[in-house]
Amino acid sequence: MPQYKAPTRDIEFVLKDVLDSSSHYAALAGREEVSEDLLDAIITEGAKFSENVLSPLNQVGDQEGCTWSEEGVTTPTGFKEAYQQYAEGGWPSMTADTQFGGQGLPPSVGIVLTEMVSSACWSWGMYTGLSQSAARLLENYANAELQETYLPKMTDGTWGGTMCLTEPHCGSDLGILRTKAEPNADGSYNITGTKIFISGGEHDMMENIVHLVLARIDGAPMGTKGISLFLVPKFLPDAANNIGDRNAVHCGSIEHKMGIKASATCVMNFDGATGFLVGEENRGLNAMFHMMNSARLGTALQGLSAGELSFQGALTYARERLQMRSLTGPKNPEGPADPLIVHPDVRRMLLTQKALAEGSRAFIYWVAQLVDTFYYGADEEARENAEELSELLTPIAKAFVTETGLESANYGMQVYGGHGYISEWGMEQIVRDLRIATLYEGTTGIQALDLLGRKVMGTGGKQLMAFTKLIHKFCKSQEHRDEMTPFINKLSELNSEWGEITAKLGEKAMANADEVGAASVDYLMYSGYVALGFMWAKMAAVALEGDQDDAFLKAKVQTAQFYFQRILPRTESHKLSMLNGADTLMAMPEDAFAF
Amino acid sequence: MPQYKAPTRDIEFVLKDVLDSSSHYAALAGREEVSEDLLDAIITEGAKFSENVLSPLNQVGDQEGCTWSEEGVTTPTGFKEAYQQYAEGGWPSMTADTQFGGQGLPPSVGIVLTEMVSSACWSWGMYTGLSQSAARLLENYANAELQETYLPKMTDGTWGGTMCLTEPHCGSDLGILRTKAEPNADGSYNITGTKIFISGGEHDMMENIVHLVLARIDGAPMGTKGISLFLVPKFLPDAANNIGDRNAVHCGSIEHKMGIKASATCVMNFDGATGFLVGEENRGLNAMFHMMNSARLGTALQGLSAGELSFQGALTYARERLQMRSLTGPKNPEGPADPLIVHPDVRRMLLTQKALAEGSRAFIYWVAQLVDTFYYGADEEARENAEELSELLTPIAKAFVTETGLESANYGMQVYGGHGYISEWGMEQIVRDLRIATLYEGTTGIQALDLLGRKVMGTGGKQLMAFTKLIHKFCKSQEHRDEMTPFINKLSELNSEWGEITAKLGEKAMANADEVGAASVDYLMYSGYVALGFMWAKMAAVALEGDQDDAFLKAKVQTAQFYFQRILPRTESHKLSMLNGADTLMAMPEDAFAF
Repeated sequence: MPQYKAPTRDIEFVLKDVLDSSSHYAALAGREEVSEDLLDAIITEGAKFSENVLSPLNQVGDQEGCTWSEEGVTTPTGFKEAYQQYAEGGWPSMTADTQFGGQGLPPSVGIVLTEMVSSACWSWGMYTGLSQSAARLLENYANAELQETYLPKMTDGTWGGTMCLTEPHCGSDLGILRTKAEPNADGSYNITGTKIFISGGEHDMMENIVHLVLARIDGAPMGTKGISLFLVPKFLPDAANNIGDRNAVHCGSIEHKMGIKASATCVMNFDGATGFLVGEENRGLNAMFHMMNSARLGTALQGLSAGELSFQGALTYARERLQMRSLTGPKNPEGPADPLIVHPDVRRMLLTQKALAEGSRAFIYWVAQLVDTFYYGADEEARENAEELSELLTPIAKAFVTETGLESANYGMQVYGGHGYISEWGMEQIVRDLRIATLYEGTTGIQALDLLGRKVMGTGGKQLMAFTKLIHKFCKSQEHRDEMTPFINKLSELNSEWGEITAKLGEKAMANADEVGAASVDYLMYSGYVALGFMWAKMAAVALEGDQDDAFLKAKVQTAQFYFQRILPRTESHKLSMLNGADTLMAMPEDAFAF
Repeated sequence: MPQYKAPTRDIEFVLKDVLDSSSHYAALAGREEVSEDLLDAIITEGAKFSENVLSPLNQVGDQEGCTWSEEGVTTPTGFKEAYQQYAEGGWPSMTADTQFGGQGLPPSVGIVLTEMVSSACWSWGMYTGLSQSAARLLENYANAELQETYLPKMTDGTWGGTMCLTEPHCGSDLGILRTKAEPNADGSYNITGTKIFISGGEHDMMENIVHLVLARIDGAPMGTKGISLFLVPKFLPDAANNIGDRNAVHCGSIEHKMGIKASATCVMNFDGATGFLVGEENRGLNAMFHMMNSARLGTALQGLSAGELSFQGALTYARERLQMRSLTGPKNPEGPADPLIVHPDVRRMLLTQKALAEGSRAFIYWVAQLVDTFYYGADEEARENAEELSELLTPIAKAFVTETGLESANYGMQVYGGHGYISEWGMEQIVRDLRIATLYEGTTGIQALDLLGRKVMGTGGKQLMAFTKLIHKFCKSQEHRDEMTPFINKLSELNSEWGEITAKLGEKAMANADEVGAASVDYLMYSGYVALGFMWAKMAAVALEGDQDDAFLKAKVQTAQFYFQRILPRTESHKLSMLNGADTLMAMPEDAFAF
C-alpha cells in the first residue's frame, strides 16, 4: 500500500500563490483573521494525522471491512481509536458555527484537511465527512431547539450524522420516494420506510448518529414538492441532553461492495421512528440540496485525493522498479535494467496523474473559495457572482474530477504492470474505492444533465458567461507576457469555442429536448478540460513569475505544458461527438438492442 | 449476476455473412470441410454449455476464490465438475492436431467457443485456454518423444498446461530472467528458480499439469538470446504413460487479486525439478512467442467477452429499472417513471457497449481467420500476407479491445447507478475481472511499442501498408453505393491520415527514439478505432445488402452510424496528442515529479 505523504508544498502553492488566500479571507465577513499561520498549522497537523494515524488504516480497513450484527456495525481495527484522536484534536469543530462551539472557519479551510484525510483513508473519511455535512445543514435549516440539542455534540464530535435519501426503487428519482411521516400530537413525526445505501448509517465510532431523512408527510403532494426533511436520531436525547431511549431506526444489513469496504453502507429500517421536522414542510429537497452540493464538492475532492495517492504509489514504483532499457540508451548502465521512469509511456501515465491531481486541486480549492464567498462574502455582488459560479462549477468538479481520477487510478495500476492487480501493493484498492465516486451523490450522467440542462441552458447561458468572461479577462491580463502566449492562445480559442458549442446545442435542444441528454456528458467533460486548462494557465502564470531556479516552479510550468499538449486535445473529440447529435442515440427501437 | 446468453445471431452474422467462412475454410489445406453445419453445432452446443454450466459458476467463483494448502490448490465449487463435462464433451480436442487425437479445427473455430466460455466464466476459461495454448506450442516445437508422451493426454483434457515466464524481478523484461537449467546425463535438465503470476500453476481440475518454463542453461549468453524453453510436468509420466513420481515443482502460494479470483495465480517454486528441452537451446523465446501471440488474441477475446457480458447486464437493467421521465414526455405514463433506456445518455452508454462488443467480435474473428490462413492457407502468397497482417493486428486487438472492454464494463456499472457498485448485481465483478486484461500478456504500453516500434516502423511501414491497402480496396469497392457514402468518406479520410501520421512519427523517431514510446499508446488507440471503423463499415455494407425489414440488420446499420458519429471522433484527440511529441514527457527531471 502506498504510504501517503501529504503534498504540502503543492497545497500551499495553490492556496497562497495561486488563489491568494490572504486577500480572499480578508474579504469574508467575520473570517478576516484566517491567517497564513493558521493555514500552515492546519496543513502541518492535518498532514501528520493523515500520514501517521489514518494512512496505516487504509489497507487494514479494506481487508477487514465492517461487520454487521443485530447489535450494530463494527468498524475495522483502529477506526474508532483514530476517531477519538480526531475528536480530541478538535478537528470536527473546524468549520462549525461558533455559536455551538465551532471554530467558524470557512469551507475552503476545511477542504485542506478533507483532501488529506480522503487520500490517507477514504473509508474512514466517509464517517467524518457526512457528519460535518449533516451539521452544516442543521446550522442552516433546523430550528433553534433542534440546533441547541444536537449541534454542540455534533460539533465536538461526540455525535455524527448521515443523509438518508435513496430507497430501493429510487435513486436519482427522489420524486417517487415512499418513506412516510405521520404527525404526532407533540409536534414530532413517526417515520416509516426503508432507506438504502446509507453511508455510516450504523457504526461504533460515535455515541449517537443523527439521520437526516427525506420522507413524505401524510397527504403531501406527489413528486418532489411533497418531500420533507426530518432529523431522526439513533438515540433520543434525554432531559440532560445525553443519549436516552433507543429510537426505532435500525440497520438491517450492510452491502457487500467493490470497494470502500470499511465504510458501512447500510440498509436503514425506520419503523415508526421518532423524527423532527427540519425546515418547512414539503421543502425538504431544498434543504437537502444544500447538503448535496457540499457532498458533491466532497466527492470531487475524493476523486482528487485517490488520484493523488495513486500517483504517489506509481511514482515510487516507477523510480525503483528496473525493467527494460531506455530507447535512447541505458540510463542505469550499472544495473540490470533502467528504472521504469525513463520510458516515455510510463512518464505519460505519471504526468497525466500529476497534471490531473494538481489541476483538480487548484480547481476544487477555487470552487471552495467561491462557496466561502457565497456564504460569507462581505460584498453583496461578489456573493451573488460566487453563488452563480459555484453552482455552475460544482457538477463539473464532481463528475470531471471523479472520472479523470478513475483514469488516473487505473494508470497507477498500469505503471505496476501485473503487480498492480495484486492486492498487497494497494494500487487496485484505490481503483475499487474510487469507483464509487462517479456513481454516488448523483452519477456522472446526472451531473451532466444538471450542468447542461439546468445550469447552462436553464439560465440562458448566464452562468456560463460569467465563467467564460473570467477566462477572457485572465487571458487579456496575460497578453503582454510572451512566455504565456502558448497557454493563452489555446485557452482563448477554447473559451470562444465553448460558447459557440453551447449556442449550437441550445438551438438543437429547442427542436428536440433529447439533444441535451445526448450531448450532456461530452459537454461536461469538455467543460472540465477547459476549466482545468484555465487552472493550469493560472498556475503557469504564477510559476513563471517566481524564481526560475526553483525546481518546484519549473516542474509546474512543465506540467502545464504537458497538460496543454497531451491532455487538452481531448476537447476536440468531445466536441465532434456531441455536435453529432441525438439521432444515432434515439433511432434504435428498444427491442433491437440485442437479439 | 447477469445470466449470460450467447449472442449466437451476431456470431453467425460475423462468421457467415461478414467473414464468409465457407470460402475462407475452402481455401485452407486439409480444413476444407469445416462446414456451416459444423459451425452451427459448435455455436449451439457451446452456447448451451456456457449458459447452463459455466454462467452459474461465475459469481460463486468470485465469492469462494481458490484455496491454497501445502497439498495444492482447490478451485471453487463446481469448477471441477464443469471441467469433467467439458472434457467428456470433447471440447479440449477441438483445435488439436489429429495425429494425437485432435479434431484439427482451425483457430477461428476454437475462438467461437472461447468467446462464449470467457463471457460465461472468465476464471474457469483460464484453465482451459492456457492448456490449449501449451498443447499448440508442443505440437509446433517439441520433439516426437515429448509429443507422444504428453499430447494425447492434453488433447483429451486429462492433463493441462501453463506458461511460466515471469519472475519476481522481471515481467516484460524477460532478458533478465534467472531461473536456471542444469543438464543431466540422461538429456533432461534440473530446473531451479521461482516463477510468479502463473495462472493455473496448481489446481484440482486436471490430473497433471505440464509447465512450459523459460530458463537459462548454465553458461548461456546473457539477455534474451540465452533463454531456453523446458517442459516440466507436475507428475513425471511412468513407463505406461500414467502419472508417476511427483516432480520438484510446487506452488508456494497464490496471489490475492482484484478479480479473476477463481483463477489460481501461483508462485511456482522449481527446486531442481526435472525438465525437458523444447525446441533448440537458447531459442526458447522464439517458441514462447508462438504461445504468446495466441494468448494475446485470447486476451483480446476476453476483453470482448467481458464487455459483451456487461452489455447484457446493463441492457436488462435499463429496460426494467424505472427512473425519471424522458425529456420529451413520458414513455411509460402508467408507471411511476420511465425505464432507463429512454434516456439519451443511458442509450449512449449502451450503444457504446454494443458497438465495441460487436465491432471487436468482427475484428478478432477476422484476425483469427488470418491466423488460420497463416497456418493452413493453401496459397503461399495468401499465407505470407496473412502472417504479416495478423502480426500487425494482434497487438492492436490485444490492447485496444481490452482497453475499450474496460471502458464498456465501467459503463455497465454506470447504467446501474449505485447498484452497480454492489457485488450482488455482478456488474462490478466484470470490471474487476477485466482489469487484468490490459496488464497480462504484455501491458497496453508493451503492445503499443510492439505495434509502432516493431510492426510499423520495424518493417518500414510494409505491414501497415498491407492493411491500409485493404481498407482502400474495400472503400473503392463500395463507391457505387450511395448508402455507404457516409461510412466510406470517413473511413478513406482516416485511412490516408493514418499513413500521414505514421510518416510524421517516423521522421520524428529518426531524430529521437523516445518519440516512438511517446506516441505509441495514442497511436495504438488511433489504429484500433480505425480498424473497428473498417469492421463497422464492412458490417454496414453487408447489412445494407440484406432484407431491410430484418430488425437485426437494421440495428447493425444504426450501430454502425452510432460508431461513426459518436465513437470514431476519438481518433482526433489521439492524433493531436501524439503529434505533440515527446518533449513535454521527457523534459522533467526524475526528482521533480513530486516534492
